[in-house]
Amino acid sequence: MTKLFNDPARFTEDMLVGFLDANARYVVGVPGGVVRAQQTRPGKVAVVIGGGSGHYPAFCGTVGPGFADGAVVGNVFTSPSSEDAASVARAAHGDAGVLLTTGNYAGDVMNFTLAVTQLRSEGIEAEYFAVTDDVASAPKGEEAKRRGIAGDFTVFKCASAAAEAGLDLPGVVRVAEAANAATRTLGVAFDGCTLPGADHPLFTVPEGQMGLGLGIHGEPGVADEDMPTAEQLAHTLVDGVLGDYSEGDSKRIAVILNGLGRTKYEELFVVWGTVAGLLRDRGYEIVEPEVGELVTSLDMAGCSLTVMWLDDELEQYWTAPADSPAYRKGAAVPTEGQQRLDPVADSAAPSVDLAGLADDDGRSGGRLVARALEAMAAMLADAEDELGRIDAVAGDGDHGRGMVKGSSAASAAAAAAANEGAGQGSVLAAAGREWAAKAGGTSGVLWGAMLGALGARLGDTGRPNAATVAAGMREGYDALVSLGGAAPGDKTMLDALLPFVEELERRVAEGESWQDGWRRAADVATTAARDTAGMRPKVGRARPLAERSIGTPDAGATSLAMCAHTVVESFSTSTKGDN
Amino acid sequence: MTKLFNDPARFTEDMLVGFLDANARYVVGVPGGVVRAQQTRPGKVAVVIGGGSGHYPAFCGTVGPGFADGAVVGNVFTSPSSEDAASVARAAHGDAGVLLTTGNYAGDVMNFTLAVTQLRSEGIEAEYFAVTDDVASAPKGEEAKRRGIAGDFTVFKCASAAAEAGLDLPGVVRVAEAANAATRTLGVAFDGCTLPGADHPLFTVPEGQMGLGLGIHGEPGVADEDMPTAEQLAHTLVDGVLGDYSEGDSKRIAVILNGLGRTKYEELFVVWGTVAGLLRDRGYEIVEPEVGELVTSLDMAGCSLTVMWLDDELEQYWTAPADSPAYRKGAAVPTEGQQRLDPVADSAAPSVDLAGLADDDGRSGGRLVARALEAMAAMLADAEDELGRIDAVAGDGDHGRGMVKGSSAASAAAAAAANEGAGQGSVLAAAGREWAAKAGGTSGVLWGAMLGALGARLGDTGRPNAATVAAGMREGYDALVSLGGAAPGDKTMLDALLPFVEELERRVAEGESWQDGWRRAADVATTAARDTAGMRPKVGRARPLAERSIGTPDAGATSLAMCAHTVVESFSTSTKGDN
Repeated sequence: MTKLFNDPARFTEDMLVGFLDANARYVVGVPGGVVRAQQTRPGKVAVVIGGGSGHYPAFCGTVGPGFADGAVVGNVFTSPSSEDAASVARAAHGDAGVLLTTGNYAGDVMNFTLAVTQLRSEGIEAEYFAVTDDVASAPKGEEAKRRGIAGDFTVFKCASAAAEAGLDLPGVVRVAEAANAATRTLGVAFDGCTLPGADHPLFTVPEGQMGLGLGIHGEPGVADEDMPTAEQLAHTLVDGVLGDYSEGDSKRIAVILNGLGRTKYEELFVVWGTVAGLLRDRGYEIVEPEVGELVTSLDMAGCSLTVMWLDDELEQYWTAPADSPAYRKGAAVPTEGQQRLDPVADSAAPSVDLAGLADDDGRSGGRLVARALEAMAAMLADAEDELGRIDAVAGDGDHGRGMVKGSSAASAAAAAAANEGAGQGSVLAAAGREWAAKAGGTSGVLWGAMLGALGARLGDTGRPNAATVAAGMREGYDALVSLGGAAPGDKTMLDALLPFVEELERRVAEGESWQDGWRRAADVATTAARDTAGMRPKVGRARPLAERSIGTPDAGATSLAMCAHTVVESFSTSTKGDN
Repeated sequence: MTKLFNDPARFTEDMLVGFLDANARYVVGVPGGVVRAQQTRPGKVAVVIGGGSGHYPAFCGTVGPGFADGAVVGNVFTSPSSEDAASVARAAHGDAGVLLTTGNYAGDVMNFTLAVTQLRSEGIEAEYFAVTDDVASAPKGEEAKRRGIAGDFTVFKCASAAAEAGLDLPGVVRVAEAANAATRTLGVAFDGCTLPGADHPLFTVPEGQMGLGLGIHGEPGVADEDMPTAEQLAHTLVDGVLGDYSEGDSKRIAVILNGLGRTKYEELFVVWGTVAGLLRDRGYEIVEPEVGELVTSLDMAGCSLTVMWLDDELEQYWTAPADSPAYRKGAAVPTEGQQRLDPVADSAAPSVDLAGLADDDGRSGGRLVARALEAMAAMLADAEDELGRIDAVAGDGDHGRGMVKGSSAASAAAAAAANEGAGQGSVLAAAGREWAAKAGGTSGVLWGAMLGALGARLGDTGRPNAATVAAGMREGYDALVSLGGAAPGDKTMLDALLPFVEELERRVAEGESWQDGWRRAADVATTAARDTAGMRPKVGRARPLAERSIGTPDAGATSLAMCAHTVVESFSTSTKGDN
């Protein structure tokens, strides 16, 4: 609902003050509305658009070079008076006449027609035209009774561009008529909007339903239907719009998928994906489509599809540049650089002959790493439920799932790299990338970084000695600290990893093999992980539930210790006597 | 809530398909996101922005000349992976390095930092920068812990413009840092948004409350406060943003009043009117402000105020042109024409020496018309409640109010014109204009048109004869029919006016004075108005309640007949023996 206002009775006046202030380089205020900040040049027809407010960018948001010369601004969803219309038209008028144009609503028609009479009595050449694009508001054969909705935009745009191109008033009227005759719109609504100060919406749509044929003020629709998927809606809109038009055989069309205010850009793009495909399937070429909010209805939920069938003249006016507060078209800054030939290839990581980087020792190490990761993935698959249960005490319970996804992806990548003949460094790097990419969440990124740092230290050649392995694990730990921003004592995986690394370093410094050191370090990590039960979480998602977490160990520390054990067991099995 | 989707799990992919299709002249897709359709030119640093989706136009909507070179697109409100970030950066990279930049969220920081490491390992010069503009997310002194919200836009814009201007990578990083250091944002929320496929919003704000300090994903705010007026909110936002910044003494500022999705443009302009005044009161000059939706949060209701304190360099980059799917800046079409000097004077109706147009007979007639309108206004003031009661049976009950507002305004305008020495024609014209302008609604416009048509026939000179008066009333009737689109039998004022006009014509044709004919015609109108009770309304607001209307006369026909009687009585009183 509309939430922000001062005195609801002065909403439109307050809105205009802010609009004019923010857009002073484009527009100035006059009684009844706004005109461009620059006088209409000699010989140019002025195009004055309008109607009630509540439809921004329509109508005042499109006053500027290439688009309208003025906009008459009524109260929300209310026709401005004929005096308002005449006042704006006088100010917009240069010396070549004025086209006043609105959507086809009784109040607008009356007031703007009266304004034309008044202007003519003052010696100003003036014409009026009403847009009738809404196929749902009257049947075929009664097109003149139809309302103007988002098709206002195509008609106003083309008429304005024709005036900018120098056509005389009869010529501009002819273009408006042609654009209107070639334009069809069908709209739907999911929820109503609320006028400033009102406590209930203008209308409601039942939950799970959609109002088909809704206008831009909540006028009754044709029918309530079940809420469709985006694809189903695309079919409904395309069928409804194309089915109404039989006047020409143009295969070039301007298209607008218009959001009414609360149906957001992402949703519109989802619908557009199907709309565009359906239109092309029927042989149409889509010319500079617009997907966004052009004719809104406060915060009404819904959208509409507008198609304008183009001839050469309408296409010229549709694609002409414009520069207004809310709508700009055409390049204000030059496009430099070559068209891309193969963007997907450009984005691919450089492919490397991994086998060529490794020697036999390195390739052997790569295979060992791949087997260790395979064992970890198998162990974690068994432990998924238990890790999830621990995590759920004070977290969202997805730690087990994330570890399984990450480790299985890493294992697959490691196996593939090892099969290509990669050394241990490249196998770990590939595994780390995949872990991070597939696991999702923070722990995936951290595990990926740890494997990557270890791999960078181990390299693809030679058999790493114990000091190198210990240094690699220390660098993995450092990578986690610098990435994650946590510290030991925060109740994270660091509280198992740091004791592991320190124990490994100590054992290696005392001359033990890295496998022996690793086995002792894994025991230390297990104890340390268990001891996190007494800790209070200081970072991450568990922080808001800190009290509840006390008494339960950290899931990330627990899984790290389990993995440390699995790795050394896998090496004991596969490399008995190797080193 | 988010209503339009196919498979919620594929929402972002579907969105990207539609976005890329609709904006193919700007962007192409690559794994992980989008890049400009043109390759980055040699020597130009590439700027890659990103984060989760759900914030359109942020982030992919601002990829194009003058703005970003690429955008990494994660799932809704979810960090993309480091692989995604590296992939987009590779594609965007020319030969001069790449700046990756996001808002300051743990997931984005980790993934984009990892991407930088990966890119450097491939020989691509890369840097990462995180925006920290949200003053509510951490106290002063802990700026580095703050989130990035709408200030993403100022920082990304300036960094991108710096890259476009040819700065090298350290230079672009320096501009990003400077823009971020000079940018502060405070946001509020009125209602949460709903993820695609979810059945409840991410958060809610209690009815009548506002969440102060809300981010762009519904993270907890600082405090819940009572829902303010637009002016109160403007004070809260301005005080909050200005109060946090003490680093410099620049009096030139870039400002964004950003809508989060459901808080619409009209509301933002209402707030902006006060924001702009408050900022200027404190000595600031506002440079090219933006009021609209730049960083949204699906259909979250709320807004935020961003201020960037400008030095010459930041001002250059803030005001530089840009051309992207959702954000264009700079004139694509030349501004022609002189600056307006006095738009309000341009819009005023030509002033005429009314007395000079009239002769003595005409001026006498003008005074008679003014007295007749004064009598009508007095009569309608007495009849307001009764007319309202009749209208309320099947309408909105505002007919009495509208007739009183219109007739009193018309009477005042007529008296003023008569005092200036205007003839009967100009007095009626002035009265008609004011009736239409002040009454509101359809009947005001119709009454205004009727008085105007009659005045045009009577003219300002001489004493109208009976045939002229009858012709004037017929022309008044014709004006109503052509304006209102109704016909006799539709249960409108026409059902009293047509019998009136026909009786007046008949009497005058038989040689009666117009006063005698008018008296008989008024009796006929009264009977005809009473007979509308049996009719069923065919047009206008009463149509949906047609059944309920049967048995009650039409309010517009009734008031017309009453006015006809009042007029002839006023003439009998004031012009006894005159003719």
